[in-house]
Order: sequence, then C-alpha cells, then structure tokens
Amino acid sequence: MEYYPAWGRNQLFVPGPTNIPEPVLRAMNRGNEDHRSPAFPKLSKSVLEDVKRLFKTTTGTSFIIPCTGTGAWESALTNTLSPGDKIISFEMGQFSLLWIDQMRRLNFDVDEVECEWGAGVDLNVLRRKLEADKMKMVKAVCVVHNETATGVTNNIGAIRAVLDACNHPALLLIDGVSSVGAIDFRMDEWRVDVALTGSQKALSLPTGLGIVIAGPRAMEAYKTATSTRVFFDWGDYIKFYEAGTYWPYTPSSQMLYGLRAALDLLFEEGLEQVFARHSRLGEATRRAVKAWGLDICTKRPEWHSDTVTAVVVPSHINSADVVRTAWKKYNLSLGVGLNKVAGKVFRIGHLGSMNEVQLLGALGGVEMTLRDVGYPVVLGSGVGAACEYLRLNTPLIPSRL
Amino acid sequence: MEYYPAWGRNQLFVPGPTNIPEPVLRAMNRGNEDHRSPAFPKLSKSVLEDVKRLFKTTTGTSFIIPCTGTGAWESALTNTLSPGDKIISFEMGQFSLLWIDQMRRLNFDVDEVECEWGAGVDLNVLRRKLEADKMKMVKAVCVVHNETATGVTNNIGAIRAVLDACNHPALLLIDGVSSVGAIDFRMDEWRVDVALTGSQKALSLPTGLGIVIAGPRAMEAYKTATSTRVFFDWGDYIKFYEAGTYWPYTPSSQMLYGLRAALDLLFEEGLEQVFARHSRLGEATRRAVKAWGLDICTKRPEWHSDTVTAVVVPSHINSADVVRTAWKKYNLSLGVGLNKVAGKVFRIGHLGSMNEVQLLGALGGVEMTLRDVGYPVVLGSGVGAACEYLRLNTPLIPSRL
Amino acid sequence: MEYYPAWGRNQLFVPGPTNIPEPVLRAMNRGNEDHRSPAFPKLSKSVLEDVKRLFKTTTGTSFIIPCTGTGAWESALTNTLSPGDKIISFEMGQFSLLWIDQMRRLNFDVDEVECEWGAGVDLNVLRRKLEADKMKMVKAVCVVHNETATGVTNNIGAIRAVLDACNHPALLLIDGVSSVGAIDFRMDEWRVDVALTGSQKALSLPTGLGIVIAGPRAMEAYKTATSTRVFFDWGDYIKFYEAGTYWPYTPSSQMLYGLRAALDLLFEEGLEQVFARHSRLGEATRRAVKAWGLDICTKRPEWHSDTVTAVVVPSHINSADVVRTAWKKYNLSLGVGLNKVAGKVFRIGHLGSMNEVQLLGALGGVEMTLRDVGYPVVLGSGVGAACEYLRLNTPLIPSRL
Amino acid sequence: MEYYPAWGRNQLFVPGPTNIPEPVLRAMNRGNEDHRSPAFPKLSKSVLEDVKRLFKTTTGTSFIIPCTGTGAWESALTNTLSPGDKIISFEMGQFSLLWIDQMRRLNFDVDEVECEWGAGVDLNVLRRKLEADKMKMVKAVCVVHNETATGVTNNIGAIRAVLDACNHPALLLIDGVSSVGAIDFRMDEWRVDVALTGSQKALSLPTGLGIVIAGPRAMEAYKTATSTRVFFDWGDYIKFYEAGTYWPYTPSSQMLYGLRAALDLLFEEGLEQVFARHSRLGEATRRAVKAWGLDICTKRPEWHSDTVTAVVVPSHINSADVVRTAWKKYNLSLGVGLNKVAGKVFRIGHLGSMNEVQLLGALGGVEMTLRDVGYPVVLGSGVGAACEYLRLNTPLIPSRL
Repeated sequence: MEYYPAWGRNQLFVPGPTNIPEPVLRAMNRGNEDHRSPAFPKLSKSVLEDVKRLFKTTTGTSFIIPCTGTGAWESALTNTLSPGDKIISFEMGQFSLLWIDQMRRLNFDVDEVECEWGAGVDLNVLRRKLEADKMKMVKAVCVVHNETATGVTNNIGAIRAVLDACNHPALLLIDGVSSVGAIDFRMDEWRVDVALTGSQKALSLPTGLGIVIAGPRAMEAYKTATSTRVFFDWGDYIKFYEAGTYWPYTPSSQMLYGLRAALDLLFEEGLEQVFARHSRLGEATRRAVKAWGLDICTKRPEWHSDTVTAVVVPSHINSADVVRTAWKKYNLSLGVGLNKVAGKVFRIGHLGSMNEVQLLGALGGVEMTLRDVGYPVVLGSGVGAACEYLRLNTPLIPSRL
Repeated sequence: MEYYPAWGRNQLFVPGPTNIPEPVLRAMNRGNEDHRSPAFPKLSKSVLEDVKRLFKTTTGTSFIIPCTGTGAWESALTNTLSPGDKIISFEMGQFSLLWIDQMRRLNFDVDEVECEWGAGVDLNVLRRKLEADKMKMVKAVCVVHNETATGVTNNIGAIRAVLDACNHPALLLIDGVSSVGAIDFRMDEWRVDVALTGSQKALSLPTGLGIVIAGPRAMEAYKTATSTRVFFDWGDYIKFYEAGTYWPYTPSSQMLYGLRAALDLLFEEGLEQVFARHSRLGEATRRAVKAWGLDICTKRPEWHSDTVTAVVVPSHINSADVVRTAWKKYNLSLGVGLNKVAGKVFRIGHLGSMNEVQLLGALGGVEMTLRDVGYPVVLGSGVGAACEYLRLNTPLIPSRL
Repeated sequence: MEYYPAWGRNQLFVPGPTNIPEPVLRAMNRGNEDHRSPAFPKLSKSVLEDVKRLFKTTTGTSFIIPCTGTGAWESALTNTLSPGDKIISFEMGQFSLLWIDQMRRLNFDVDEVECEWGAGVDLNVLRRKLEADKMKMVKAVCVVHNETATGVTNNIGAIRAVLDACNHPALLLIDGVSSVGAIDFRMDEWRVDVALTGSQKALSLPTGLGIVIAGPRAMEAYKTATSTRVFFDWGDYIKFYEAGTYWPYTPSSQMLYGLRAALDLLFEEGLEQVFARHSRLGEATRRAVKAWGLDICTKRPEWHSDTVTAVVVPSHINSADVVRTAWKKYNLSLGVGLNKVAGKVFRIGHLGSMNEVQLLGALGGVEMTLRDVGYPVVLGSGVGAACEYLRLNTPLIPSRL
Repeated sequence: MEYYPAWGRNQLFVPGPTNIPEPVLRAMNRGNEDHRSPAFPKLSKSVLEDVKRLFKTTTGTSFIIPCTGTGAWESALTNTLSPGDKIISFEMGQFSLLWIDQMRRLNFDVDEVECEWGAGVDLNVLRRKLEADKMKMVKAVCVVHNETATGVTNNIGAIRAVLDACNHPALLLIDGVSSVGAIDFRMDEWRVDVALTGSQKALSLPTGLGIVIAGPRAMEAYKTATSTRVFFDWGDYIKFYEAGTYWPYTPSSQMLYGLRAALDLLFEEGLEQVFARHSRLGEATRRAVKAWGLDICTKRPEWHSDTVTAVVVPSHINSADVVRTAWKKYNLSLGVGLNKVAGKVFRIGHLGSMNEVQLLGALGGVEMTLRDVGYPVVLGSGVGAACEYLRLNTPLIPSRL
C-alpha cells in the first residue's frame, strides 16, 4: 500500500532516514527466530564487536538498544551521571537543542552555550568555562558531532585537546548520530567517553537501534551514577553479556541481521573509502550550491558537514516551498529547515548508501525546483559544478578494476 | 547467512517472538521513507487508531513506542506514578517478577504479593489489601494479564470487580504482552487505566514496537506524575499528535507498515475468531499434554492460558534437555523453563500467526523429543487427542466456504 | 552475495531489464503456492484480462507464457503460420534481425527488407511489395514496434493503413517488447493480429513472462497453422482456460502476483500518463544529447523512441568504453551498441519504472563518463537542457496535489 | 493481496511447487540487473557448473532455460532427435502420458508401453522391445524417473543395464523433474544421455527454470538432429557459452541468484544427507498410510517414491473431497488424483525444503481430514507410526551437534 503513490523511485535525500541498500533489505527479509537459541549469541557477539570498529575503539563496551537516537542520548546520560550533575553543552541547532532539553528534564544542571545556528563549538568559550571550573564541578561536556539541522561538524579532537589543556576530568559525551559511519570518528584517539549513533543514518538501516559505546571512564562512572534508569540501564546488558545470552529483553533479529549486513558493506568498501566518499559528495554538493549563487548555513569551512548541506534560500522564498514542490512534483525528498531556520533553509542529506549519480539526480531535481519556486538558477549549473569535482575525485570501483 | 543451518523450516513455538505471516513480511520489505513527508501521517494515524481495537477501547490514547515490552512497562509506570508511590503487584512468574524489579528500580514502593508459580492473582489477597488501605495510599495495582513463564491467565474483569467492590481509586495497569490480540481484552469494559503489549507476540511482527494505551484516568494521572522520563514521556507524543506529525523522533516505517498489515490480518479474520482460534489451539495443546500423562504448570483451569502452555516434566528429566533436543534434532524451537521453574517445565507457545496443522507438527515433534530424552510417551497419543478436539472445533475457513 | 560490489545504488539505464518498483518486489516476496487450489484462478483470470488493457484490445485472447521475448516470438509465429509461409519483415537492428533469423530457422520464407540501422519501416517499400503480391502469397507482415538496438519506433497505424490500402490479408504480427506499456499501442484500432511483450521491459518485472495477444484473425489462423509446437501451443492454454484452471503447466505464482502489482501501478498512474511520462523522458534525453553536441542513431524524428535513445559517439571514441567506464566508475549501467553499431553507439534506456530525477542522475553520469573517455562535453549542459524541458512538462503528482 | 486468506501458514504438501526456504526467498528479493555487465557471467558460470553436481555428472553440458518442465522435455527431444525417429516410452501416470503426448506432437514415432498406474517400467518389456529392434531403429528410450502422479520411482540403473545387455545404442532420456535433488541420480554412472529437472521441485525455487543436462552422446546427436527448434536450441546457448556471456536472451537474475542459494543449501546439507532425508520422510509417510489402514498407489516396494506418496482412498470416498476439505478447513494443500486415478488417490508431496516436524503436521492434518470425509481413521495412528520411524532415523543436525 502506498499512501501517495508516484512514478519511479522516491529519491530520498533527507539527512536520515537514509537509503537502505538491497543486501541489507535482503538480510532483513526474514521471519522471527528464537533469540534464546544457541545460535543467536553468535550473531549478537559479532555485531556487538564490530560496531566498535565504526567508532574506532577497542576499549569501549558496546550497547545495541532497541530505541532511537533520543533513547541513545538518554542511555548515555543516565548511565554516567547523577541528578544535579553539571553539564556543559552547546546549542547550535535543533538536535543539540533537543538533547539539552532532555538533559534538563533528566534533572542535570546544564550550562548551555548558545551558538549562532550555522556555527560550531567555540573552543575558546569551552576553554574559558573549563578553566573557570576550578572545583571541577562540571561532570560532562556533551557535544553533537554533526548538527543535522544546520550541517555543522564539530572537531572533536580539538575539543578533547581543550579538555586536556585544562586538565579537566569531565566526561566527554558525543552524539554521533549523523556522523558515525560517514565521517571519521576516533573514539579511542579522542578519548570520547560515550559515543552513540542510530541505525537509520550512515548505517543505512531502518530506525530501531540506538548504538552506544561506553569507554573505560564511562564504565567507571556507571558504577556511581545514580540517575534512575531501567530500560536503558547498562547493567542489565552486562549481566547478559556475562551469561553469554546478550539480551536483557527480546531484540529484533531482523535488525541485527540487517546490522550485520550493513557493517559488512561498510567494511567491504573500507571505512576510509566510506569517509572519502562522503567527503566527495559533500564537497560536490557545496560546489553546486555555490554555482546556484546560494549560500549554505554553515558559517565556516572548518565546520562543513559531509553528511548534510543546509542551503539558505533567498529571503523572498520560503524553503518549505522548495521541499514541498520537490516532493509533489519530482518525488524528491529533501529536509526542511527546523526551528530557528524554518523557512530559511532546506537540507540535502548525502549520507549513507549513496553514490555520485544518485546525488547528481537530486541536484538536478533541486535546480528544477528552485526555478519552480521562482529562483532564477541557471539550469545545469550546479550539476555541472558537481560533475567537475566528482569526475576528478571519484576512484574506479575497486571490485571492478 | 544462517548460523546453525538445518533442513526445512524452523518450527517456532516459543511464546514470542512468533511466526510472521508472509503478508506482514511483504509489507515490511521496503526502503526507508521520509517520516516528515505529508504522506506519513496517514499511515501513522491509521495504526494509532486501529491498535485501540485490539484492546477494545475507544476512550484510550495510544502510544506506539520504538522499544520492547520492558520499555512499555516503563512508559506505563513513569507516566502515571511518582517516586515513592505505592503499588500492589503479584509475583507469579518470571515476567511479573521482572516488572516488579523494574518498579523497585524506578523507586516505587511495591507491595509484592508472592504467588505460587502456576497460580494467578488471588483475588482475596487483593481484596484484603485494598480494604486495608483505608488511606487509599495504593496508587496502582499492576497485573500481568498472561504470565508467559507459567502459562497463567488472570481474570482482569474480576480484578476490576475487586477494585470496584473496595471502591478503591488505584490505577489498574495491565501487562498484556502475551495476551492482547490473542486473548480477549476489554480495556474499556474493565476500566483498565494503562494496558500495553509488544509487537512480537500476538501481532506476529518483529520486536520493536511497545504499544501502550492510556485510559482517561491515566491521562489525568500523567499531569501530576513526577517520575523522571524523557524518551518514554507521553507528553512529547501528544505534542506531535496535536501537530499532526505524530512522532517525536524517527519511527521505523517498516514496522508501521508491518503493523498496518498485521492489524489488517487480525481484523480480516475477526478478533472474536482470533480469540476462538487461540482458545482452540490452547485446549488442543492441554489435551495433548494430558494424553502424554504429563501435567501443566497452571494450577487451575480458570487460569489456563490460550497462548502458552508450560509442561511439567517428570522429576528425573531436565526440561532444558527437551528444549535442546527439539532444537538440535528436529529444528523445533520451544521455550525453556525460567527461574523457579528452570529445568522443570518447557513451554509450547501457541500464539500469533498459527494454525491447527502447524500445532500438530509441533506436538508430534514434542512427542519424539520426549521419547528421545527418556520419557515413555505413547507416540501419537497427544497428537491424536489434539486432532480429536481440533477436528470438532475448527470452522471452515470463511473465505473458502 | 554481490559479485562486483559498489557503493550506493546501481543506476540501471539499459533498455531492459528495467528497474523494479518496490510494490512489485513486495508482491513477489512470497513462497510457492498450489496453482491447482481454488484460489489461483482468481489471480490468473485477473491478469489474463488486464494485460489486454496494455495492448488496448478487447477482442484479443491473451497468453502469459513462462519464457522470454524470444519465446513469445516463437509463440506468435508457430501458432499462426505453416512451414514455407511467406513473411515480409524488416531488418533494422539487432532485435528485428534476430526475429528474422528465428523465422528462417522455423522454416518460414522471409522476404527480408534491409533498412539502414537508425531508420524504421519504409512504408513505400512495404506498399510496393504488397502490391506486387497479386496472389496474396504473403501470409504475414512482422514488425518490431520499437527496435531496441537503435531507438527506432515504427508507426504501426501507418503500416496497417498500407495493408488496408493494398487490401492485403496478411497477418500483422508486432513485437512490442520494448514498447507495450510505455508507448501507446492500439491493438484493436490498428487491427494487429498478434502482439507480444516481455515482463522485464515497461512492466518493470523480472524476466520470465512472455505475453502474447492473439486477435480474432490470429485465432482463426491458429486452426490451420501446421507449424510444430507444443510448449508454445495456444491450444493447450485454451483447453485450460475452458476448464477454468488456466495453466497447462505450473506457472510462477511470484511472477503472476508481480504482474498483478505491476499492472495496478500502471493503471493507477493511468496509461495515458505513463505514455506521456515516457515521451517526456525520451524528449529530455534527446535534448541532452543535442546539448552534448552528439547525434542519436535514429534518422528521423518520426522514428524517435521514447523508451531508448542510442547515442552516436565521435568516431575516435569506442562506445563500449563509455559503457564500461560508466559501470566501473559510476555504477551506472548503460546499453552497448550491438552488431552493426557496436562501438559506435551506447544506449540510454528510459523505460519502465523511472522518473525525472532518476534520469537527470543518469544524464549527469553520462556527462562525466564522456569527459572521462575524452569527449569535451560541457559538464551540466545536457542535464540543464533536460531540466529545462522536464520542468515545464512534468505535472504535479496527482496523489500529492 | 491474498485471494482466499486463512489464518496461519499454508501447509504446502503438493508434489511441487514446493516450500521455498527463507535464504532462497532472500536471495531472490532483488531488483533487476544488467545481464550484459561484466559481473553477470560469474554468477552464470557458477550455477551452470554446480547444477551438474545435482545430476552427478562431470561430462554433461548444462542448460538453464527460462521455461517449465514441459519446455525442458521439448528441449531434450528436439535437440537430439529428428522427426519420425522412433522412441520407446512408458505411460504409467499423468506426467509420462503428457510427455508421450508431446513426443507425438513433435512428430516422433512413439512406441508407447502402457503400464498399470502404480507400476513402473517393466524391464522385461523393455528388453524384449530392444532385442526385437535388430535394425536399431529405436533412437531413444524416454523414462520418467519419478512419476509424480502415482508415486512411482523407476530404477534408471537397471534400465541402463537392459540397454547395455541388448547392446542398444538408443539414447536414454530421463525426466528427473520430481526426483533430481531429492532422490539419488547418477547421470554419468547410468550413462543417461539427457536428464532434466525443473526449479520448483526439489530445488525449492519458484517455477521458471528448466534445467537440462546433455551427455556427450546427446551433444553428438545434437549435430544431426533435424527437429525444428529455436527457443530451445542448445546451439544458441553454446554460442554464448563460448563468448563467455552465457545467455542468448535475457535471463531472470532473480531466479539465478535463487538457484545459487538453493544449490548452496543442498550442498551445505550434503547431497547424500538430502537423499537420506527424503527417504526418511517417504518411509514415514508410507508407515502412516499403513497405520491408517489405507494403501498407496505404488504397486511394489521397489517403486516406492521418496518424494510423493499417492494414497488410495476407500471406494466410497472421493479423494477430491479429501483435498478440498484439507484446504478449506485446515489450510493444508495436498495433491489431487489425476486422470485415471482422479477421485481415487490423493497425494502427499514430501520433497524439497521440508523436515520431520512439518511432515508430522501434514499427517495430522490428513488424519483430521479423513475423519471429516467419513473414513474412521484412529486419530494419531499415522502420526504415531511416523514418529516411531522418524525418531530412530533422524540424525542430529550437524551444525548443532
């Protein structure tokens, strides 16, 4: 059943959920199975181990939780912090805003740093705050690696360096929902204490798995964190890990087989190649936007996001019209502007299972749409600019050399 | 990839997850879609409305949460109660035990009534406790409708009658995980305040959806309940219901389309026919057990469960051997005995998408297994008894008259 | 298992097999079923009736044969003609050539009219030949509606007019493999005697069904045609049609359910809208080719094909390099040049389940590829020209108005 | 869409099409792909090679033809024989009868040996006929290995011995449609000249592939056989084998990936284990029938079929009622009696992807049905007899030891 059918294939360019590759769809096309059978732990163990590779950690403990990114956030916070704990966090877009809202509702004491939307973490502000915290009352610094609302990627390594420079023991909790598996993430190198992502972004799965990795200091913090938690409690998982049965409650075998297939695809392509591809698609998109004579929301190149580009429309145009027209006329799904940038930006997601030709189609679709809503773009200009860059930077497919 | 391949089809007779019908698998075999497109609310609304029919409620507010039954429990409790609130609950098997454990960890004050495993709620005990609560300090009575560990179904109507007789205002929270959609559940008639189920049981879907329905008094209680909650907070859902976009965070479109298909199948068969079928399969199973010369765990007929039968093995046999042998030799998945009844019972799940012939196969498989582990069952005896009953009680398939 | 994996989605722009829409994949995702059950005729009848709508016939008898287009050809010929019968046919590309080869091997006497590849049927030649046939020895005129190798669409109505003008009784047999369901086909109006197509083209199914429709005169001819045939014999089908069981041998239920879904999609879009869409995609492609400074193989506008465009490459370029590079670098599948035009043309298929944005992606991919192989195309030029045309000619999606 | 929906899973016990295992369904759940890409030959070669293992031949040449068994018959005959050639064949059931009918319509001179239905090839008759053929005018002996209509398996090795004893050069053509992949077939050892099967039987795929293997003498005969053929001509295949592109016309990639998965499953289980399993299921079924007090159609144990059992009903019962009732009440699909045994037998197919517990379910379903139609079977008797045998003869699943 299709509710609003259209010809051809929907072109899904929202920044999540993303396009599911056929091998993953195939892996998930299965009946239920008894998760208490002797067979199931084999699968469970393999994915629990291998998700760590996405985060570049060998020291972390992984949790695969039947929830969304919102649940993963809650898992990260409640397992490591106690009510009243002080958190520094940065509000720079809708998702960092929602996380901060969650922190407050979970009774943490958030020192919220407001950033202009389109900017990333101001390292100086962070340093000043940490330096000022002589008593080391700040228990955690929480940062969204890639703010999906504005297309801003923060430099987590630099944030770690600030913490180190201040010799501050605060935990570093990172939301990698729209980055992990698409943008390089080095949990161990950056000594991230809790990192998390969701299945429907770079992993190109359906929604349904919150993936949380706890580093050694987070596991230590777990022991004393008094936040109320049951569904999200790491301890229940660990108990079952030790028993070798892995799941405190029934997992979705379909999602786990899908995750296995998704990981296999990423490893087969090679993580560094996956990152290079996202970088390529991101840069091509930005060049297209420039060729259209438009700006992107991201304020500085250092914050350019390789997974989502938020395009600022001229003031006389409502960006929601762009999104609506693309969907109603071209079956092209773009992301709307959220909250402070509602009506002002539309977003092109270019993460997950995607290639150069798919992106060119979307860029062409955006060009037609921009004209339809009254912006005098030169048709073909953005696609041409993207082609120019992609042609020179796309490698031959290794399996087809 | 199959981890422990075997010939033929795995026969899944654990009491959840259950067999997924092909139309549901088909409905779920799809890529991701933009849940913020104008199309998605149509699907969302239809399932949010129609799940209420499973619970026989028109006054409830439904929540479809990306979690498991454990999460649904947490949703029910934290949205209606405040820390320290007094709850009466009945420990009569592994799942009621786990729920009580959750209540304690969520800081409620549980008056736990221990029951013999195999027995259901003792209405007299409940009445005495409520009568004794002159100050109406008890805020909730929490009951597992069908205890999956022992095959015990409680009479919720009778429990409501006790509350009424005592004129007690406590909320009535019911876990319908292994009953709703298989055993008659009358939320409005019984004035259940919160009822919940999970997708992987009678609905015959993969795991991944916790379905919670809040009655009017629960919605009222929500306003003052101070338990910490974010991911499970009903308020976020309601905000999005009012906006007409329905989801505070990305839902699994696959699961929602699957739910739509699962509901369609149940309504097409007819809920009363679905209940009659489960009753038929349950009674046939019990007759088979009797023909084998064995007892079931359920202490009294009034508690007979039509979704799961826990079979007590002779004391010289370890029920885990039955389960292990059935899986290793016959590719038949049965449920083990849990906790207090570990080694003593094995469980035959007969809920969800299942018919008479499927059950006969499983019963035949159990007979072979019982012999294999040393119990001198007369081969064919249980199947014969089941055939006798089923033949007389199975209607012609209406679509094929 | 993927043999030569690549990132993102393969972009399939060969002129068949075509992209399968998700609803069709879903419909086919099913186990086997008993084709002799009382249920199966219902499906069978519905598709046997509804395929006629694709051909715009109410007087034809339809046959759905488990074979490919080659088999459908054989079915058309052997059921209506006898060894030695004279056929006029036109060799204008690889597929018309292969059909003629088949006619010869089936022992018919073919009067082969050689056409320049890129040209269509020369109506004058046909008229002269028919006029010269005073004895009415020509039993059939066989024409490929759309020659897939060159992108040439013949005007079947005009051919019928020539037959009429000559008052010639020859049967008119039309290969509609790469046209029916994409380009208007009016079997009854044009009094086509046998028309045929295959499942993997405009129907957007897997290969496996040859669909043959016999008009009243063909059914009459069947009675006296002495060609040897068993597997392809219409009589066996008719016997089972009369019995109401429909199939002389086991059909693929998956393909039939898929066909049902494919027909539903086409009817839902509306056949005239489907034709308009193919016309739109064809014209956009031709404008892109022109913008690239290249020619198409098709000699005259009257023969333009709306399902496939054969692009002529400059003489210093091997068109096979274009196809190879597109596949090896961009995961874009184009069609090679066949036989006489091998190395000289590459083909862009734009039929079946496809929309504007998909096409733009492919055109962008072709532009990059042309540059890669040394042709100095202006990047974005073809996409821009296509955008210009598509933007003005694409209607809003009716379900989304 | 289900035309006649019913609860639970349809139990498919017709002797083909058979139950498709999930890994095969998964492998087939895919879009189309370009069969002319460099990737496709890899798959093609692997299945063309590996199907030979099913037939136990290393000297044969394999053809995988998009057709059904009927087409495979035609391929075997027309590629090796010329019109008027003399064939000895045995009419012992509906399928051997249909093959003979085909031979006649293809203009061969059939010496048809009528057998009682339920009996197999009478070796004495064959010997007498071959001995009488002093001039070696008989060009082929055509035998159905397993007659699906009656449940009769012929001893092909013994037939070969008769040919040898008579020093007769006739080609030996064997229909292995309902045997190959389920019953031991030794093409090389028995010097079978052409053997064939279909995808929807032991391979447990959808219908759509006719698999034909030609031995060296058949390939030699091909050179001089003058039967008209195009679609079925081996020569076209061989031309493409030599070119390394494998397919003279578009194959179904879905079916080929499915075949790859189906072969993998059979090889993983082990062909000898597959044969043992079918033998086990066949014997269990026969013991059940005996326990019911009924006879099977097969006249002598040497002809017992391990893939299908035709059960003779008492004369006052119409076997069609058994089949109809099983389907209408229990969603159990059995095979009807065909032609001479219509109304007299019903058939239980036990081939392909099937295990012990599945069979027990069907046997239980048959017992209920027999009672429903008025035969006083002791309920449980057949299942008990089958359990007795299966329990002692079913090995532990090797992967689960």
